[in-house]
Amino acid sequence: MSTRGGTFSRRGLLAAAAAVPILAESAARSQDGPLPSWKDGAPKRAILDFAGRVSREGSPDFVPPAERIAVFDNDGTLWAEQPIYFQVAFALDRVKALAPEHPEWKEIQPFKGIVEGDPKAVAASGERGLLQIMAATHAGMTTEAFNDIVADWLKTARHPRFGRPYDRLVYQPMLELLAYLRAGGFKTFIVSGGGVEFMRVFAERTYGVPPEQVVGSSGVTKFEMGPEGSPVLVKEAEVEFIDDGPGKPSGINRFIGRRPILAFGNSDGDHQMLQWTAAGTGPRFLGLVHHTDAEREFAYDRQSHVGRLDKALDEAGQRGWTVVDMRQDWKQVFPSALRSER
Amino acid sequence: MSTRGGTFSRRGLLAAAAAVPILAESAARSQDGPLPSWKDGAPKRAILDFAGRVSREGSPDFVPPAERIAVFDNDGTLWAEQPIYFQVAFALDRVKALAPEHPEWKEIQPFKGIVEGDPKAVAASGERGLLQIMAATHAGMTTEAFNDIVADWLKTARHPRFGRPYDRLVYQPMLELLAYLRAGGFKTFIVSGGGVEFMRVFAERTYGVPPEQVVGSSGVTKFEMGPEGSPVLVKEAEVEFIDDGPGKPSGINRFIGRRPILAFGNSDGDHQMLQWTAAGTGPRFLGLVHHTDAEREFAYDRQSHVGRLDKALDEAGQRGWTVVDMRQDWKQVFPSALRSER
Repeated sequence: MSTRGGTFSRRGLLAAAAAVPILAESAARSQDGPLPSWKDGAPKRAILDFAGRVSREGSPDFVPPAERIAVFDNDGTLWAEQPIYFQVAFALDRVKALAPEHPEWKEIQPFKGIVEGDPKAVAASGERGLLQIMAATHAGMTTEAFNDIVADWLKTARHPRFGRPYDRLVYQPMLELLAYLRAGGFKTFIVSGGGVEFMRVFAERTYGVPPEQVVGSSGVTKFEMGPEGSPVLVKEAEVEFIDDGPGKPSGINRFIGRRPILAFGNSDGDHQMLQWTAAGTGPRFLGLVHHTDAEREFAYDRQSHVGRLDKALDEAGQRGWTVVDMRQDWKQVFPSALRSER
Repeated sequence: MSTRGGTFSRRGLLAAAAAVPILAESAARSQDGPLPSWKDGAPKRAILDFAGRVSREGSPDFVPPAERIAVFDNDGTLWAEQPIYFQVAFALDRVKALAPEHPEWKEIQPFKGIVEGDPKAVAASGERGLLQIMAATHAGMTTEAFNDIVADWLKTARHPRFGRPYDRLVYQPMLELLAYLRAGGFKTFIVSGGGVEFMRVFAERTYGVPPEQVVGSSGVTKFEMGPEGSPVLVKEAEVEFIDDGPGKPSGINRFIGRRPILAFGNSDGDHQMLQWTAAGTGPRFLGLVHHTDAEREFAYDRQSHVGRLDKALDEAGQRGWTVVDMRQDWKQVFPSALRSER
């Protein structure tokens, strides 16, 4: 049975996994059955049960493939987000790279603090400082130039704790889940507070999610005729849309136009997305990744400044949403090391 | 060969056509070959040639299926747009329907003009008047309530000249083209100045284009907890994004994130979308529907207030874009009458 047929056959799963290079290792292990990096606990059983019910023809919970919309937050749900959001790490690295061209930054916060390695000064600049950083690093260039800058950064930057490229700090169990759902006829979307253009640089090759299925925050772009008479889109400093918190249901409405039947997040920024998904009629799956694994990844929830999980965790408990305990429920967190990393 | 395989087999075409109810008639006729409502002129040959080149494995112009993005304007490209944009007709009908609840409208333009049938007074209210009409008819309700209102309107409203439901004034040759491209592995998107939520009510059943492949103008929506503790999205009067003219490349960038290889429009509002599509590397198809058929549809171009085609027509001539002469190139304009219309 093919992917489009919407059942979870072995052949469909292998094909789905093979289509995403990073999943080759899970494909090789799929004699273990689906979701090999998930332990046989309640979350894995809930996922398999739900996916089976909605995709089996004749099931009372059957959902036509066109309506099998699954949405995933990115930061903290598909890849790590500590000690700072990876896109912020990109922006800080970019400020440092650009500093020689901006001698005036030596005197101006938050740039001075970034160049001098003074996080307190950067933090003190607050939201206004963050917008200045974003304007300096995410605007004033064409969309194509920005894509190249992000791609170069992903090749060279390394995470301070793990020493890996940031796009290798994705969660192996979630990669398997994405591929598993697609093999069952789901359309998988990313719905993230991160920048849509930033994520698209790696979303397809890393997650198997094509650019048109990435929903995120965005800045205004302006159509202009370039110097050689060829049109370009120039990224401007003006914020257009913030796809976070209550913005996520709005983003889903605008970009997808259909209510998801499955939503996975990890923080209060995903709370409204889960509520919006849960409020539809018919079968629903709501999931939260709970970061409980200080040894293999990070442990944080109600008190964290990055990825705080508090109200959504309460509601998950009250409503029976699936909470994935990273330490308990995942055999493996990140994909095995690439040869080049060893 | 299936749709996903990306070739234009008879079986794939039949399956694609059968998936769109309104296309049943073209499926029945497909012994005539692809695009049966297109005469065997230069536009049809250019389409078949292009689609063949990009989808044939081993062709020097081969494009992988994921990159076969085709974008279509809606008003005047997929359905008619005269004597006024159909969404404006909806808004005017809606003002009339709401007027009994708004006695104050008897004294206020543009509402007074609409209720009294005085188009000059409405036109005199200009852009500010149009925004007032949109706010009164497209805001202050949930997204779901709006969808129901549009669906009801499509059932009951009739076009003043043709006496048909507006969603039966779609172009049969373009329906065939959409299905033909999908059968060849293309993803077909609508990229229209029209409201994204308005179009999604009929886009899937009429064009076979799912909601997540409809790009359009939008207003702000606000996430709220409804009276029964269930979340809703409320449509607000604030304009969020205008997907027209130079906004179309921005819309394509934000929603699709990949440059199309085929773009079809009919007016100067599509000019930048065609320029943006044309500026990519590799094979490209640029098409314009030229409304030359006063007898079967309408004839208008450079002087029209609705759907003006002037600068884009000049550039099409200079650059060899395909201009479809509706009168010359189409055997049939609209789908044959439904039984219920006879």
